Amino acid sequence: MIMNNMRPLILLSNDDGVRAKGLNELIDMLSPLGDILVMAPDSARSGAACSITSVIPLYYDIVEKRPGVRICACSGTPSDCVKLALEKEAVRRPDVVVSGINHGDNASVSVHYSGTMGAAFEGCMKGIPSVGFSLCDSAADADFSFAAPFVRAIVKRVLKTGLPAGVCLNVNIPKVKEDGCKGVRVCRMARGTWSSEWTEAGHPRGKEYFWLTGDFTNMEPECEDTDMWALAHGFVSVTPVAIDMTAYPAMSGLKDLELL
Amino acid sequence: MIMNNMRPLILLSNDDGVRAKGLNELIDMLSPLGDILVMAPDSARSGAACSITSVIPLYYDIVEKRPGVRICACSGTPSDCVKLALEKEAVRRPDVVVSGINHGDNASVSVHYSGTMGAAFEGCMKGIPSVGFSLCDSAADADFSFAAPFVRAIVKRVLKTGLPAGVCLNVNIPKVKEDGCKGVRVCRMARGTWSSEWTEAGHPRGKEYFWLTGDFTNMEPECEDTDMWALAHGFVSVTPVAIDMTAYPAMSGLKDLELL
Repeated sequence: MIMNNMRPLILLSNDDGVRAKGLNELIDMLSPLGDILVMAPDSARSGAACSITSVIPLYYDIVEKRPGVRICACSGTPSDCVKLALEKEAVRRPDVVVSGINHGDNASVSVHYSGTMGAAFEGCMKGIPSVGFSLCDSAADADFSFAAPFVRAIVKRVLKTGLPAGVCLNVNIPKVKEDGCKGVRVCRMARGTWSSEWTEAGHPRGKEYFWLTGDFTNMEPECEDTDMWALAHGFVSVTPVAIDMTAYPAMSGLKDLELL
Repeated sequence: MIMNNMRPLILLSNDDGVRAKGLNELIDMLSPLGDILVMAPDSARSGAACSITSVIPLYYDIVEKRPGVRICACSGTPSDCVKLALEKEAVRRPDVVVSGINHGDNASVSVHYSGTMGAAFEGCMKGIPSVGFSLCDSAADADFSFAAPFVRAIVKRVLKTGLPAGVCLNVNIPKVKEDGCKGVRVCRMARGTWSSEWTEAGHPRGKEYFWLTGDFTNMEPECEDTDMWALAHGFVSVTPVAIDMTAYPAMSGLKDLELL
């Protein structure tokens, strides 16, 4: 919640890298709402999840500065970016951390692999209201324009009222034609799974290599309360996700382990 | 659950790399329980979380083969390792995925950064009972010996009864002297946070670099139901963690977003 008269400070990151279209559109969408600090990976870090870099030291450069917008490119992962921005570059504590807009969805179990959500989790673990945005279109030149009113409204709402402690938002935006979006649904993660994940490829000198690809199966396509259902039916999905991953209902069934 | 007379197939991985002591001790601890297939990163991938590799192709080599044990070294992350093993190297579906033993704890929010747990999450997302083990000692020559009876008993239990769908175990083992371990506690993740995460370091040619380090603060040190409390008091902590990260209690408070 904004408690003073300063313009909000909005920290942005992503996993597609500082030059990605989705990040640059996000800057334009949100700069009317506050001062923007971007700390984004210097190149793509797709699938970075919450990974952090501990075996090599990191650096960042300020690559652009204009009134109300400062853009930094960092050699680390999305989580590293948020950590570095908070401790080394932000002039004050950001009011919100926003990550994205990712080129490609991060619904269902893909949240676990998502560097976009890695940045949002990091902001949330630091006690800052945090949101990750992803568009269901992985093209480098994807059309993000119709997403603008949703993105702006959700960030405005989060700036105004905050989020519960330990909870951040995973927002996925369907690929629809302009005016084709049916609205917003608050959803749970669909149960789903990836399979047939490897495509074999030969090295020129003969060794067998494997490209990670895969087919996603939604294991509950008929469930209208899931993110996958919302996206398949033209809605923006808003899924609150929790830092506390404890499977509370499973605890009592494990009590026999205490007798070891 | 083992439904036939074959020896169980146990898939092992880790994030400290195929040569780490913790993994090799784990092989010795578990080979009495079944056939062992190891697919581990060819070098350390600490902090890899659930990250996956999509921009370069991956490979692996069988680096050791002895009766009942096959060890592969892979160029990818712990999650990649589990995915590759399941699809390309396992002769049948593993009965359990075991990751570790990590050199260093993965309690509280560190579960989000943990490559050890990344491998366990991947097994769980593929519907296989999965467990990650970590020892609260990050030394390369840490003493894992007193952990053996706990590790074996927990894996035996999981082989016998399975785990609830979408739930895996995050097991942390305290650093205690032999016979100093007080037993096992089934726990929730403690609320905690990392701060002071960067140590500045100069590049020989003058640029400023930053090493990721940090201090962990347990935000509820008095709570006896947490993993951090168990470890601080000499217990092995067993925390069931869920693939479904939806923050269900937060959903109703976000319903106003559906009016956008």
